[in-house]
Amino acid sequence: MRNVAFLGAGAIASKVAPMLKQAGFTPYAVGSLSNAKEFASAYGFYKFYTNYEELVKDENIDLVYINTPHSLHYSHIKLCLQNAKNVLCEKSFTLNSKEAKELIELARAKNLLLAEGIWTRYMPYISMVKELIEQGFIGELVSIEANLAYNVKDKYRIQSLELGGGALLDVGVYTLNFALSFIQDEIKNIMATCKKMPSGVDESNGVILEFSKGVFAFLNSSVAMINDRKGTINGAKGYISVDNINNPTLIELYDQNRKCIKSLAVPNQINGFEYEFKACFEVLEQGKIECDAMKHDEILKVMSLMDELRKIMGVKFIGE
Amino acid sequence: MRNVAFLGAGAIASKVAPMLKQAGFTPYAVGSLSNAKEFASAYGFYKFYTNYEELVKDENIDLVYINTPHSLHYSHIKLCLQNAKNVLCEKSFTLNSKEAKELIELARAKNLLLAEGIWTRYMPYISMVKELIEQGFIGELVSIEANLAYNVKDKYRIQSLELGGGALLDVGVYTLNFALSFIQDEIKNIMATCKKMPSGVDESNGVILEFSKGVFAFLNSSVAMINDRKGTINGAKGYISVDNINNPTLIELYDQNRKCIKSLAVPNQINGFEYEFKACFEVLEQGKIECDAMKHDEILKVMSLMDELRKIMGVKFIGE
Repeated sequence: MRNVAFLGAGAIASKVAPMLKQAGFTPYAVGSLSNAKEFASAYGFYKFYTNYEELVKDENIDLVYINTPHSLHYSHIKLCLQNAKNVLCEKSFTLNSKEAKELIELARAKNLLLAEGIWTRYMPYISMVKELIEQGFIGELVSIEANLAYNVKDKYRIQSLELGGGALLDVGVYTLNFALSFIQDEIKNIMATCKKMPSGVDESNGVILEFSKGVFAFLNSSVAMINDRKGTINGAKGYISVDNINNPTLIELYDQNRKCIKSLAVPNQINGFEYEFKACFEVLEQGKIECDAMKHDEILKVMSLMDELRKIMGVKFIGE
Repeated sequence: MRNVAFLGAGAIASKVAPMLKQAGFTPYAVGSLSNAKEFASAYGFYKFYTNYEELVKDENIDLVYINTPHSLHYSHIKLCLQNAKNVLCEKSFTLNSKEAKELIELARAKNLLLAEGIWTRYMPYISMVKELIEQGFIGELVSIEANLAYNVKDKYRIQSLELGGGALLDVGVYTLNFALSFIQDEIKNIMATCKKMPSGVDESNGVILEFSKGVFAFLNSSVAMINDRKGTINGAKGYISVDNINNPTLIELYDQNRKCIKSLAVPNQINGFEYEFKACFEVLEQGKIECDAMKHDEILKVMSLMDELRKIMGVKFIGE
């Protein structure tokens, strides 16, 4: 079983698709309301569907990769699960934790794989950083900093309150996942603020998370600027710097004199999306329905945190 | 007039003193309750005093550099001003804005120079960065990030609620000054949190400042860890990275593709402290009583901001 279907054929789909054959998967079918045929032809998919209902009835599909806008994830995941399809859905998983919870329950009831395509969670860099932390080089963990920004505020999807736009769900989600990958602890205090777009979504935001054991995460994201995309993990005796938290390439370890004592390049990758697809198929072969790298509880944790952050920032999507 | 006196002879004094002769100043006298003689001999001061009252009566002193603990700045500045001495006082200027305000009024009444020795404010890097911002390379300013940390929490002075210890006044002051150097705008919203030491001072803190025009400053500091000490100024089209906000050496300009398009080294310096002393003597020669690089209003602004931050964090010094 290696047949992959795409539900959605937008910008992110064009980035993901070129990896499929090279990683040993079959670009089987693509469903898109507008450009299904063109997309299928461009990326070598055998079949195309111009409506999603037909797509999910295709019995040869082993995994559906959903890449529609955030606000449509809920209905599209549901559509897939109800048609007995295993699902890998792009981040952000859903608009909110209520949607996520319902879908996870449905997947469990139907014994189907349900995974979030937050690609960084599946990358080898996570275990590389964890190993450095565990080896004690930086001493006791004190804080994590991460930022991510792109100047994409002119895009309709980003501006739209209806499509679940804004900085938090689109780019901030990476900063949250970065922090939560390395801190397994209760969050005891959340602070957040944002600058809003005229539509009401957040254009730039700042977040401080305080964990029970006293560790802080300082996170910020924006769709209105360019920044260094760095993540740093600061300890009593040194720090770890991760270059580009949205697709890490370089991990550097600094000692107490701020001298770089270790520099690790991540393994060569096709385009980085292969890890999440591989994880899904491995789990399916094991007869399981969630990925170890991003378990259902962790998906819910991130979605609940984003609910809470939006509540503080006063960002409410249409229909919520 | 070039005669410099030190009131205080601790760790920071040992860093500053070696610059004096090389920069054309006279290490005239040092006052210290414990090690005046040793300090004078080690750094070539002509005179030494084992009590401060005697020191400030010496009529040959042109400028007193105060470098005692934060909590003593108020009384030591006052002692100097009352004895007709011009003053350059180490950061943090005082414990709080109330003390700062009273002393500034006294300096004005007596027509004496009163300056804060927050050395970064006097460094050439400030105008280099301002020029890059003004040239429009990074487009509209969106946010400023700065962090600073040292693992010095075992020092008594740092732990002491009585001496004005904690991360904010000792290292956080640099992050605040970094942000305020490049944003001349009203602060409309302040968020802050901290982890405290058993004594009640802040060990690590996180600060978000929101300015009236929508720019954010994300700042954090700690006395319990090591971090990268970076400052970044993020705009719509690129960002400026400043390496080590506590003694900048390298300024890098990145374009919208995050490619470094300009790399500026700051001018060679003796040890960096010469700039604040030069500024003081220039101002004295002009018959003025405040330095352009750090005017009285700006000193008050930083002190008031730190008052506000401590109020939010619940850090109250003894006697306040």
